Amino acid sequence: MLRPPAKRLYLEDLYVGQRFCSGPQIIDEAQIKKFAIEFDPQPFHLSDDGAVGTLFGSLAASGWHTAAITMRLYVDSVPLADGVIGAGAQVDWPKPTRPGATLQLFSEIVSIVPSRSRPDRAIVEMRSETRDEHGEVVQVLTAKLIVFKRGAK
Amino acid sequence: MLRPPAKRLYLEDLYVGQRFCSGPQIIDEAQIKKFAIEFDPQPFHLSDDGAVGTLFGSLAASGWHTAAITMRLYVDSVPLADGVIGAGAQVDWPKPTRPGATLQLFSEIVSIVPSRSRPDRAIVEMRSETRDEHGEVVQVLTAKLIVFKRGAK
Repeated sequence: MLRPPAKRLYLEDLYVGQRFCSGPQIIDEAQIKKFAIEFDPQPFHLSDDGAVGTLFGSLAASGWHTAAITMRLYVDSVPLADGVIGAGAQVDWPKPTRPGATLQLFSEIVSIVPSRSRPDRAIVEMRSETRDEHGEVVQVLTAKLIVFKRGAK
Repeated sequence: MLRPPAKRLYLEDLYVGQRFCSGPQIIDEAQIKKFAIEFDPQPFHLSDDGAVGTLFGSLAASGWHTAAITMRLYVDSVPLADGVIGAGAQVDWPKPTRPGATLQLFSEIVSIVPSRSRPDRAIVEMRSETRDEHGEVVQVLTAKLIVFKRGAK
């Protein structure tokens, strides 16, 4: 995916309501199984057969795999100059991610709260929806990011 | 890690205050870099040099890597009969995970809320601390798990 280099953003460049959109990324069956073997080896993340009779019905990605891909799309689409550094996050998975899904990330700044003790930074709350190719939301992430002013680092 | 097979647990076997403890798992420098290249390619997750002058100072694991290892420790230590299935979670990273850390998971059931619409299941809230070998907490995860009664699935 070739895209023009994005402007690197500092705290002064951000505002509530600002939106970011990533390019697409496909997640395939082999990737789902590989991630599951290493980090989440439960039957419904390892094969279709293992998912029969479970809540999932057929092979579904680990939610943490969806979260990891979301992070990748974050890095690609939210060009913070000092990096995307999260202090914490709320993550919800309204639907499982299925093999072959094309994921895309849509993010919006919800709030910006300056640090009281450290005037060079703020906590920026960003709400991000990870959607599949049908527009269905597979993950909602509300992350608290530590963002620095120009020249702080 | 050889451990005796744990009893497989259903909703009826769970209670508020119930605790679970995983075995240890080491996270090394190569694993940190490999995860970062695929999912979180930011300088402070890729090398010590890249972390100089950043919030981290030296190489630190992606928080999502800590979360993924936590999931692995979860699967190994919380033997839910129908699987560890999360609807969502709050995740906080009070400290970064460093190369060479030995991680261990300590979990406790915080609440059990029966589903109103589906009497065969409940939402079990589990609070889990991922600690390093010094006992320092690198992640706090409060997860909402979907847990089924015996014979539901």
